[in-house]
Amino acid sequence: MAERIAGPEIERLIQLLARLPGLGPRSARRAALHLIRKREELLGPLADALQLARERIITCSVCGNVDSCDPCMVCRDERRDGKLLVIVETVADLWALERAKAISARYHVLGGTLSPLDGIGPKDLNLARLPDRVVAEGVEEVILAVNATVDGQTTAHFVTELLGHLPVRITRLAHGVPVGGELDYLDEGTLAAAIRSRMDF
Amino acid sequence: MAERIAGPEIERLIQLLARLPGLGPRSARRAALHLIRKREELLGPLADALQLARERIITCSVCGNVDSCDPCMVCRDERRDGKLLVIVETVADLWALERAKAISARYHVLGGTLSPLDGIGPKDLNLARLPDRVVAEGVEEVILAVNATVDGQTTAHFVTELLGHLPVRITRLAHGVPVGGELDYLDEGTLAAAIRSRMDF
Repeated sequence: MAERIAGPEIERLIQLLARLPGLGPRSARRAALHLIRKREELLGPLADALQLARERIITCSVCGNVDSCDPCMVCRDERRDGKLLVIVETVADLWALERAKAISARYHVLGGTLSPLDGIGPKDLNLARLPDRVVAEGVEEVILAVNATVDGQTTAHFVTELLGHLPVRITRLAHGVPVGGELDYLDEGTLAAAIRSRMDF
Repeated sequence: MAERIAGPEIERLIQLLARLPGLGPRSARRAALHLIRKREELLGPLADALQLARERIITCSVCGNVDSCDPCMVCRDERRDGKLLVIVETVADLWALERAKAISARYHVLGGTLSPLDGIGPKDLNLARLPDRVVAEGVEEVILAVNATVDGQTTAHFVTELLGHLPVRITRLAHGVPVGGELDYLDEGTLAAAIRSRMDF
């Protein structure tokens, strides 16, 4: 924006909004104006919600999830099967599995993937406490729910070695045709995996 | 999200973020996690910026712009040509013209367009003070910088009648080929307007 259009308060708000994923400079301006227009219904409540999040949201010391209590609600939930531990890269992945109601298990959030090129090694991930956790909680199966990317698979192999000496079954997510997906649009790797892992009908 | 994944603080934050233009439920979740991850650099500053905006941002009683002072910085700017008054629909349009450094004039923000179908009449727009303002400020030219839509043009005609009795020149933005635009992609209306308003080369 040119100088002296609007006050520094609006400028600053736009700059910060533009740093949210999914918002560029243009949509950040639109969002700022929308907020100013909806001062009572949206701007105020959002300011309060952010303030509350700043004060209360913490990282769960057990699993790495984010919540307002530690351990988090997922770790506290007695109805979950404590023998199943799902390893995910991020909290977003944990949420995705929970939304899908895919499994009633506990989670371990790595906080990323091993990525030598980006200088991300084992010490940068939530890995140090994992073997102890598996032993202490009597986990029987560790499910590697990492992304099917090079970094994800590298990380999966590292976790497998890290837990290799423990009497625990290690599994990974199935590869195959996404439900609702069309073969014509799938890559060769996925199609080959779907054929290899074909099942009786 | 399913029940008991994350605390109510995160849920509330996601719900509010999803109400920003340009963010849906999925990107709101991503934005919330991004904010939580960048607590010091982004979440805190954004909470402060919103709080400041809530306290300070007001609507300019002269032109309808938003700023932290009244009259706003645009209205206070003595270097602008007070004889030119640009009528815009929204503050976003005012900002767009300022970013383009298109003109050094004052503005009058209507706050929308006349839209009988949506029940928006003259009383819902910032129109009542416009004739007095034109007289009091000695405006010589009113530039209708409204959108080239049906509602925008309806509004332009209404403003023209509203100011018809005043000794003021009323102009509108030129229609034509957008700079950088390709003829092949333009609609017939724009091409016809560009031909009609052709200029010596």
